[in-house]
Parts: sequence; C-alpha cells; structure tokens
Amino acid sequence: MGMVGGGRDAFIGPVHRMAAGLDGLIELVCGAFSADADKSRASGADLFLPADRCYGSWTEMLRSERALPEDRRLDFVSIVTPNHLHFPIATAALDAGFHVVCDKPMTVSLTEARTLADKVEESGLLFALTHNYTGYPLVKEARHRVAAGELGTIRKVVVEYPQGWLATALEEGGHKQADWRTDPARAGVSCCMGDIGTHAENLSEYVTGLQIEELCADLSTFLAGRRLDDDGSVLLRFDNGARGVLHASQVSIDEENALAIRVYGDRGGLEWRQEEPNTLLLKWPDRPREVLRTSGPTLSAEAAFNTRLPMGHPEGFIEAFANLYRNFALTLDAQRRGVEPRPEWSDFPTVHDGVRGMAFLEAVVRNSAGEEKWSRLG
Amino acid sequence: MGMVGGGRDAFIGPVHRMAAGLDGLIELVCGAFSADADKSRASGADLFLPADRCYGSWTEMLRSERALPEDRRLDFVSIVTPNHLHFPIATAALDAGFHVVCDKPMTVSLTEARTLADKVEESGLLFALTHNYTGYPLVKEARHRVAAGELGTIRKVVVEYPQGWLATALEEGGHKQADWRTDPARAGVSCCMGDIGTHAENLSEYVTGLQIEELCADLSTFLAGRRLDDDGSVLLRFDNGARGVLHASQVSIDEENALAIRVYGDRGGLEWRQEEPNTLLLKWPDRPREVLRTSGPTLSAEAAFNTRLPMGHPEGFIEAFANLYRNFALTLDAQRRGVEPRPEWSDFPTVHDGVRGMAFLEAVVRNSAGEEKWSRLG
Amino acid sequence: MGMVGGGRDAFIGPVHRMAAGLDGLIELVCGAFSADADKSRASGADLFLPADRCYGSWTEMLRSERALPEDRRLDFVSIVTPNHLHFPIATAALDAGFHVVCDKPMTVSLTEARTLADKVEESGLLFALTHNYTGYPLVKEARHRVAAGELGTIRKVVVEYPQGWLATALEEGGHKQADWRTDPARAGVSCCMGDIGTHAENLSEYVTGLQIEELCADLSTFLAGRRLDDDGSVLLRFDNGARGVLHASQVSIDEENALAIRVYGDRGGLEWRQEEPNTLLLKWPDRPREVLRTSGPTLSAEAAFNTRLPMGHPEGFIEAFANLYRNFALTLDAQRRGVEPRPEWSDFPTVHDGVRGMAFLEAVVRNSAGEEKWSRLG
Amino acid sequence: MGMVGGGRDAFIGPVHRMAAGLDGLIELVCGAFSADADKSRASGADLFLPADRCYGSWTEMLRSERALPEDRRLDFVSIVTPNHLHFPIATAALDAGFHVVCDKPMTVSLTEARTLADKVEESGLLFALTHNYTGYPLVKEARHRVAAGELGTIRKVVVEYPQGWLATALEEGGHKQADWRTDPARAGVSCCMGDIGTHAENLSEYVTGLQIEELCADLSTFLAGRRLDDDGSVLLRFDNGARGVLHASQVSIDEENALAIRVYGDRGGLEWRQEEPNTLLLKWPDRPREVLRTSGPTLSAEAAFNTRLPMGHPEGFIEAFANLYRNFALTLDAQRRGVEPRPEWSDFPTVHDGVRGMAFLEAVVRNSAGEEKWSRLG
Repeated sequence: MGMVGGGRDAFIGPVHRMAAGLDGLIELVCGAFSADADKSRASGADLFLPADRCYGSWTEMLRSERALPEDRRLDFVSIVTPNHLHFPIATAALDAGFHVVCDKPMTVSLTEARTLADKVEESGLLFALTHNYTGYPLVKEARHRVAAGELGTIRKVVVEYPQGWLATALEEGGHKQADWRTDPARAGVSCCMGDIGTHAENLSEYVTGLQIEELCADLSTFLAGRRLDDDGSVLLRFDNGARGVLHASQVSIDEENALAIRVYGDRGGLEWRQEEPNTLLLKWPDRPREVLRTSGPTLSAEAAFNTRLPMGHPEGFIEAFANLYRNFALTLDAQRRGVEPRPEWSDFPTVHDGVRGMAFLEAVVRNSAGEEKWSRLG
Repeated sequence: MGMVGGGRDAFIGPVHRMAAGLDGLIELVCGAFSADADKSRASGADLFLPADRCYGSWTEMLRSERALPEDRRLDFVSIVTPNHLHFPIATAALDAGFHVVCDKPMTVSLTEARTLADKVEESGLLFALTHNYTGYPLVKEARHRVAAGELGTIRKVVVEYPQGWLATALEEGGHKQADWRTDPARAGVSCCMGDIGTHAENLSEYVTGLQIEELCADLSTFLAGRRLDDDGSVLLRFDNGARGVLHASQVSIDEENALAIRVYGDRGGLEWRQEEPNTLLLKWPDRPREVLRTSGPTLSAEAAFNTRLPMGHPEGFIEAFANLYRNFALTLDAQRRGVEPRPEWSDFPTVHDGVRGMAFLEAVVRNSAGEEKWSRLG
Repeated sequence: MGMVGGGRDAFIGPVHRMAAGLDGLIELVCGAFSADADKSRASGADLFLPADRCYGSWTEMLRSERALPEDRRLDFVSIVTPNHLHFPIATAALDAGFHVVCDKPMTVSLTEARTLADKVEESGLLFALTHNYTGYPLVKEARHRVAAGELGTIRKVVVEYPQGWLATALEEGGHKQADWRTDPARAGVSCCMGDIGTHAENLSEYVTGLQIEELCADLSTFLAGRRLDDDGSVLLRFDNGARGVLHASQVSIDEENALAIRVYGDRGGLEWRQEEPNTLLLKWPDRPREVLRTSGPTLSAEAAFNTRLPMGHPEGFIEAFANLYRNFALTLDAQRRGVEPRPEWSDFPTVHDGVRGMAFLEAVVRNSAGEEKWSRLG
Repeated sequence: MGMVGGGRDAFIGPVHRMAAGLDGLIELVCGAFSADADKSRASGADLFLPADRCYGSWTEMLRSERALPEDRRLDFVSIVTPNHLHFPIATAALDAGFHVVCDKPMTVSLTEARTLADKVEESGLLFALTHNYTGYPLVKEARHRVAAGELGTIRKVVVEYPQGWLATALEEGGHKQADWRTDPARAGVSCCMGDIGTHAENLSEYVTGLQIEELCADLSTFLAGRRLDDDGSVLLRFDNGARGVLHASQVSIDEENALAIRVYGDRGGLEWRQEEPNTLLLKWPDRPREVLRTSGPTLSAEAAFNTRLPMGHPEGFIEAFANLYRNFALTLDAQRRGVEPRPEWSDFPTVHDGVRGMAFLEAVVRNSAGEEKWSRLG
C-alpha cells in the first residue's frame, strides 16, 4: 500500500494505517504524505519507511513506483487527502495500473463521480470507498436481517448524524480539519452533508438494500461567514415506497459522532448507534425487544466474518475500518490468484456507492436552494 | 369535577381521574361517561358516584349541574371524548359557566380552535388543554434552562414521537381506540399527526419558547384502506431562525410512546426522553455532559414545584398528568379567592396552545398534499 | 383508613396517602399525624379532614374510632412512624380489632417481630408490610419467571441498594429523616441495613422464592460519631444452595435509590433496576437478551394485574406502592364479603416478611460484630 | 517480539499480535506458537514469518534467538500460554537476557510470583503483565481522578466481573479454553478467581491506588464434576479503611465480559463498565452526574496519552491492550537509548502487580475453604 495524504497532524491518515495493518495482510511500503515535500518525507520517516519511498508528491510516487519491479512496487494507493484531490489522484492511480482505496465523499461532483466509475469499470481494477461505518459487524447483521426478510417490507427509515465540533467558527482559528471542510474549493458543494450526510445516506442504503429516489432538503449555515452548510435535514422517499428522515449536524453541541439508524418494516424494526456499536436492537410486534451483541451466538455469517473477538470484548472504530481494508485485500489477493473471491470478501463500498453519494449530495444542495418540493436523485 | 367520556373500557378517562385525584385537591362529583346512557350510569356506579349524578348525556349533565346550588355543583368539566366532540362540549360548558379541562387535539379545525379561544377569552373562565407531557418535572427544567439562556440562541430542534401500535389494521378488528382515531368524522383531518404529532409540536414550542413559523411535511398512510395518516415527517423553521425536524409514527413496530426532544443552541444542548422521563441530559461544548435527575439538588424552582418525591423515586406518566390538573386547580382556587395565582400555578397548557396545535396540524396536512415547499402556519 | 404519623414535613406519609388513594378504593378518614397534638390537627386540616377526626395521639385515635359505629369507623390503620413505634401501635391496633398496614422494618427486634406475627395469626386480621418495591409490575414478572422455572435452578443472586444521602453527617444538622434513622432508640439495631438492606433482602426472597439460610456480613460506619451503620456488604447462602451478594450503602455519593437485582439460574438470568423500573432484562444462553417493558404483550397475568397504563406510559414509585394498598384493599373487601380473595389480591408483603426481615437484620448485625464466618438466620 | 503460545485456534494470541502491532512500534519476528512443533510452524507460516524463525519449542526459540546477532534477535518474549507455563518460560527468557510480556495470572502460586519478582529485579530487564483492562483511557482517567483527590478519601469499592460462558460443562466437550482453565494442573488453584477475579482485584487497586489488606471469600463450583471454582464473592478491606465487594462469575448466563467498577469517596464517586468502555461517570454530592467520554475535552494527560482517536470514534479492547504494549515498547526504547522514560510510558502492569494478584488469589482460596472470617493478604 502507498498512501497519499495523512502526514503529520492529519486525523484520518493514521486511522487508515492502523486499519490497514491490523490483520497483518497489508503493509505500508511508501507514501506521499503531504503536498509539502519535506513534510511528506518527515512523515514517512516517522513511520520507519525507507527514505527512497517517501515521496515529495503523489505524481512522483505513482511514477517511481510504476518503475519498480512488479513484486516490489505498491499494490494499491490509499487516498486520504481533502475531497478535491480524490478525483485526480484516483484517476492517475488507475491510469498507472494501481488499485485504489479512496476516502469519501468520492469526488466533488456527480460528473466526476460518474467519470471515475466508468474508468474503474474499464480498468478492471479494484476500487474501495471508505464508508467505514458499514464495516461494523452489527451493521452487517442489520443488513443481513433486512435482506433475509425478517423486518418485512421496509416502511420507515430514520438516520441521523449529529456532531457538535463546528458549533464555533474553528476554521477562523486555523483548525486544519475545519479549514478545508468549510472551503468550497477543497470540500466541494457541501460541508456537513458531504462530510457526514453521505455516510448517513450510504448507511441507510446499505442496511435497507433500498435506494433513495426523491428527497426534500433544508440545509443551514449557522455560523456567520461560514461558506458551506453546517446542518441539514432531509425528507426521503425510497424506491419501494418507504419514507425516511435524514438529519445531520455539525453544530449540535456535545454530540460526538452520533451516527444512528432505525429501520421499521411491516414485520419488525431495528436500531443501531455508532457510539455504542456493539449493540443492535431488534424490535418485534409480538415478542420482546432483542439485544444483539457483537459476536453473540445467533449472529449471521456476515457479522461473524467481520468480528475478531469473543462477546464482551468491545470492537471499535478501527476494527470496523479494518474490515473494509481486509475485505479489499482478500478480494485483491483472490483476483491475483485468479480465484473467485468469496462473497463476504467483496463486501466493501465501491465506486458505485460513491456515485450514489454524489447524486444524493447534489440533489440535496439543489433542492435546498430551490422552490421545488421533491427532487429526484440524478 | 364532572367528566364527559371516559366510561368503561376507555383508556384516557381513568388516567384523567387518577391524575385529578392524586393530590387530594379535586374530587370527581359527576359525569356523563358515555354516549350510551346505561353505560354512563354503570361507569359512574363503578366509581362510587351517587346515581343522580351519573348522567345519561353531557347535555343533561350541564343542565342539571347548573341547576344545583353553586357550592354543590361541579366546578369544571373534564372532556375526554373523541376529538370531534371537544368543540361542542367545551363551548356548551363555557356557556353554562363552567371552567374546562379538555383533551387534545383541541378541536377538529383551526376555525373551531379560534372560535373556542375567543369564547374562552370572553367568558373569563379557565381552560386547560391536556398536553400532559409538559407536566414532567424535567420538561419544566428543560424549558427553564432555555429561558434562562443557558443554551444560548437555539439553532436546532429534533423532536420525535414514534409508536408502533397501528402497524397493523387494528381498526378493522374493532379496536376502539384505533377505530375512532382513524375515522375522519371523529378524529378530524389527521390520525398520527393529530394524535401525537401535536404533542411533539407542543413540546417543542414549550421547551424552546419559540414558535414554528414554516414547515414542509410528508405524511404517509402505510396500511391499505386506512383513511388517515399513520406516519409523518416535517421540516421546521422557527421564528428565530432555528431549524428543526419533527417525525411521528404509529407504524414503527415496538416503539411504545417514544416522545423525545433534543434542542441545541449556540452555548449548549439538552435531551429528554419520555419513556425514561426522570433523566434530562445537558450538553456543553467545554465540559462533560450532565445528567439531571428528577428531584436533584440543582434543579429549578419550576421543576421542584412539579415534583412529589425525593431523588430516585421514579415519577411517571400519572404524576406528570397530575401536575397539570393540580396547577389548574390551584389557579382556579386562587381565582375564586380573588388572589393572584403564583406564576407556577398558571403553568398549564391553555386554549392558545390548542390554537397553535390546530394551526400546525392544518399546515402539515395542507403542505403534505400539495406542491408548495414551505407553508406558513395560519 | 386512619393514619399514624406522616404529618407536615414527613416524607413517607404523603406517599402512603397518594398510593392508598390512587385507585379510588381507599379513603383517608382520620389520623394521628404527629406526636405533637397541634401539629397532628394542623396536618389533618391540610388534608381536608374534619376536625373531630384529627386526633392528638394514636391512642386517642384507636379509642375514639373504636367507639364509632362500625360503618363509620376506620377500617385499617396505616403506620408510618419511626421504627420503634411500629410494634406498640400495630399491637394496639390489632387489639382494637383494626387491620394494619405498617411501614418497614416491621419492628426493632426479631422477638418483637415474632410476637407480632403470633398476634396477627390469632386475631385473624390482615397485616400488610410496605416492602413497596415488590409492587412494581416487572418485579412481579421477575418472580413469575423464576417460579415458572424459566431460569432453571437459581445459582447466583446479586442484590444491591446504594444511596448517597448520608454521605455527610446530616443528622448533626437536624435533618429529621437522618436524625431518627441514625438513632438506635428509634431506628433499632441498624440504620443502613434496617432501612434499605431489608428491602434488598425482601426483594431477593420475593423474586427467587428462596430463603437466605446463612450469611457473612461486614457493616461499616464511615461518619465519625454516627451511631449506626451507614454501609454494609453481605455474602449470602440460600436454602437451595444458591449463593449471593447483597450490598447496601447510604454513603455512595450521588446514588439515589439504586436498588437492583440480578438473578442467574442454570437456564437463564434476569436483571431489574428500581430507578428505571419499567424495564426487565431476561438473559439466555443461546438467544438474544430480551427487554421486557411494563405492559408489554408477553407479560404474565401477575404483572398485568398490577399495571394501570399501556406500554410507554411510565409507571413509577407511587403506582408500585399503590399496588400494595390496592391488593390489600381487595383482600379486605373480599374478606368482608365473605368470599375467597383471588390469588393476585393476596399478593402483598405480610407479617411473615417482617419476621424474615428482622431475622436477616439481627443475623447481619451479629455476624458483622463477631468472629464467626457464617451465621444462620434465626 | 517473539511469541510463546497463541497458535492456530488460540483466543488470546491474535489479540496480543494485533495489540502489539497496532502502533507500528513492535514487529513479530519469531515464535513458538504451540507445544506441537508442526502446529507451531504452521501457525508461524500463517503469519508470514520466515520458516527458520518458527520454532518447534520455546526452549529452541530462546536458544536460537540468543545465538543471533543482537540487532537481529527478538527484543522481548510475549508469553500467552496457559498459566502453569508462565513461570518457567518467563524465568528462562529473563535468564536468556530477554525482556518479557506475560499474560495473567502471572504464575500458579505466590511463591513462584515472588521468585519471579526477585529475578526481574536482579536482571534489570523489563517485565509487563497483561492486566489489559487498565489500558483503557477512561480507566486511566479514573485512576487520575482518585489520585488527584477529586473523590476525597475512598470509602467504598464495588468491583464485579460476571461472565456466563462456563454455565455449562464446556470442558467435558473438549472446549480448549474451558479445558485448561478448569484443570488445576494448568490453571493453578482457581478458575474463576484466577482468570477474571484477579483482573477485578488489579483494577480496583489500580484505580484507587489502595491495597487490599484483608478479605473474606466464598467460592463456589456450580457444575458437578468441575474441578475448580466457577463463581465467587469476596468482602474486601483496603489499607486506608475503605470497604469493598468483589464478585466474579463464569456461570452468570448471558453476561459477556461485564467487568465494572464503582468507587465512592467522601467527596465524589465514579463508575466505569468495560463493555461500554468509552464512558466514565463521575458522581458528585452537590452537582449533576457527569458523563466523561474517551477523548473528551476535559480529560487528563494520562487518558489523552492512551487515546488514538477523536471523540465519538469508539476505542475497544484491542486499543486498550495495545496501550500496554506501546507503553512497554516506549519504555524499552528509552532504556536502550539510555534516557529516562517519560512517566506515562512506564504506565503498564509489572511483576509487582503479579505478586499482588497471587497474594489475593491464595488468600481468597484459603479463606473460602476455612473457618477464619478475615484473612490477610500474604
């Protein structure tokens, strides 16, 4: 694995490295960790990388690695930069023949997203998008239960993602994460909905197996001078007739990372909360609510495959993230060995999830700004 | 107190009676408990009422009680019938010179609500509307905290009221509560939004002290053949610029009565859930989340006044409901004694809350059915 | 009902009155509310009692009421005084031919308790002891589940009752409740174990249907100068071989009234917590944990009989307390009518629970003070 | 790092490897993964180790590694075998000049433990004992708060560790983990108290900074034919006069790994539960309960140093375990570089914790079997 971005002081770069390394299947071999070449090299040295594989730029990295013998060069590029760079780097990496793992939102426009999807298709290379929350064992269990029909026909979805960290104008004080996320040039058309609303959208479609067809949105910017939204609520209509609500916020003080989903069908319901991710509630009309726990005795094969520890040994954010990398690596290895990957290995978000995310995001922004009540996803 | 409705097999009638009687300030002296005169009398006998004050109809009750000497007749009428009867009974009771306690939603139209409000104003009589959830001590604490400015300027409100009891077509099996609530002739323009959505609306305005100015709604009816909505979600815009989401459902399987509210300002936030009503969470940007508990040492006078027991002795639905009756009774007693009621005595929902509720309800129904994105409350 | 104790400023007196009155079956007709005759009369006036039935002393009350015609006199005496008065008042009330409801702990010694039990037996009168926590619907459900064998043979019981209100020497500041509870002359041999430890003991025996056979205890007094224990832990051995731990405390800061019980058998387990009393957890070896809620669809007849409201309408301390009074009243009424009370009516704690409590308490105090490892209950 | 034990099908071996590798500071270079040489080599191959460093036995590993050049040989031995092998392997590793990380309980007797402690002292080598639960950030916060005096003088400690996995006789069915843990020859004098009771003991002493001085215990074996205890409760007296209760169980059905601690002082209290390890409750006499969360703004440097992610990104069992390995590695690196380790680097359990644990364990077993009420720790 070679990494682009994630140098000193980055938040998500170390997470990707810990997640990728957790199962001993993926080794970081090189990187271009910063747009600042010196910082990139220093960051690589921190990671005990050899100096000649700490690159000054991602273009240099792609070029140099491509020149190495096949068994020594990187296998795939992990892109953990601000949003606006995802598209050019991913495109170049694919052009150079490398598989790609890319942070979300995938691009800064739906057009870019579709172009990238076409390129991935043509290349035959693997592309994973790190909608990491779908890596939790009990999210996989939730998806399994819906797919197995246990909840019946889905009627109602409530998905939410409150955070509070942008309740003040951190970006004015030079806070790096806040700075780029509120900058249209680097973040794209949205801050709150792009950064976390797309996670909520992805989670709702992953768990239910449905697609959002129409939506009605109201985005807000509560901080004077802030250039993008920091809060938003969306009414949802799914392709089977189910209705939903999605709300996300970065100004909900003291909310940490409170992604949560509730799904109700005509036979049952479920509830999962990211901050206590090892519990999944199942709701029934005629018998008591059930509390499923990670690694519990009655879980599906899908959940079990993405679990590392026995019951009562809490698995967290890194482990969920690692499931994505592990499944990607297993699929990649199968592809190399010329064997069919087992179905559970292919269970990671792809470029198609990225297209869905950008379609959602553009519809939300467009609807919120206009007079139309319901907007269809492009 | 004389009661209209609430005979054998009723749900809410006994609650009103337990609540009214809890503090020893209010005595049930008569009633017209059913449209069926025999059932009314039998119900009254169950309650140890003398036969001559178990009336065959509410018109008979009003007429007969009015004919009694002033110190023997009922003081106020408690109306616990289906919605469509609230207006005629309340109007007649006021005309007969009686104070009124009325269940919600107050009427079946905004026009009726306004007419009733005018009549109450003219009469000089007291009118309480049983939006009972505002009777919980910690709801009063929540309102106090917002009013005291502790949360700063309110930005975001999330209020929800999921239930699951109408997930199947109970009304087709003769279930009494389901039957009238899904019947436009008795329930009015809405089932879900009228029955519980208005509680959520009222709670959000009570706690924040704000008013909903505009809304955008999506109501659904999931059960084939059902005549009114059983689910709905609403985007809210408050009069200070705050945004909100309100969602209510009667088809969210295994949700009991999960009314909950979260409010976020620019200085702090709060969260309260009806099913565990003795906990109120306060959320701060720079210090740990606080867990307030009913009867705790740092609560406001408003909360303390509406609390009966020391910490750790859970107060429930009946006690909250009783606060409304008790405050109404204290105000009535003060009025009779010709003294100014203390401010905390006047803390019960009035006819004006009923007008707000009907304005909300009609806007929701109208908006949901039309193409307009934002509808103003009438 | 005539009450002894519970005058102005009392804590538990008003609870008894609200509980007794909740269902409209019991009327307070007289009382001797304080050892101070003036205070007693003033307290009665607060309650709208006629002056001639607000007595200056409990002896006067018993004498005067006995002299009234049978259909006008009190039916039963409710004793809500400090502990040392329970025995003389109960004895005198029984001698006067009145039924008795008595607060716990029943007496100040096992000898008194046994004497009282004999007297109750001889009199043929009813005696209820207000171990009110067994009145919660889900405690009755818990007992039912164990009795039905769903948990199998009970192996382990963990029962606890942490409070924090005596973490400082409140009794030195004249705090009325603290004053008498820490005074051996009025409280008896124990403060913490007598006041709340006996509730825990009673709950454990009620839920499991077992009896504590042997125990090993360690009582403490953390406040210098305090005359009785304010904390204690006890190892338990039940009569079927099950083991247990009981710990209670009044110095566990910020614990309110955190009575809780966990029971484990060879087929399943359960957990209930008084502060959120509408939830009961069931634990199974091979299927998910179940969350039972008050008034839920799968509850036993025992639980349902002691529930007033549908699911999601929280029932609290007063309602649980009221169940005891209601069941007592139904049994009393049946006895008068000469009919056999239905089994669920007889479900209230009796003088025999009081004997068990005093046997437990004396064994705890004796064991804690001595060198013997295991002490048998007397 | 070279590992002894932890081959295919082991539970704790992979945890140690993930934990050791998480921060990129420690590399697994060799191992003797099983007493079965073939299985050891196969296990090493699974981990991509070179064949010549997959040893057939731990004695071979120590001998061969010692013969390698200093910069190529293992730095420290990680011992993850059944208990009875800890002492001989640790001793031999120290003799060979290697540092040691060892699973708990440290030995099978207090005598062994003291001998090992002496040897560690003499050798000048580092020794870490994997009482991993003290690695959680909020456990470190808890310790910090007590040490800073925020809770005042500690009065009461309640520590518990319920599990349910041995509620049936798994050992009779060949369950590997159950088999050796219930075998005195491999587990030592205790199953439940040794395996998890010592964790509870260690946690209580780590958080409070106190030492258990005396105890009174009741161990049980509920499964017929089981050779060691599967449940136990212990009354504790600490060296400052504080009292406590410790209970642990392996037959509490459906309890997963429910280690929890509550500590109460004369100024405040705290509560932490392993299954939701990112929450720490602080309890105060005069202000609301506070909810601390991992990575929250007001945490101590000790907690922050052991945290990898921002708030709301749950850290789990592996991350806590990794803190122990990381701190060990930082201390080892400092020692090599000849610099003083920073205090937070030295924060890992040592051989002295192991001596405490064995003293506790032997006192518990002895007390439980005898007539003496209170036994002092050796």
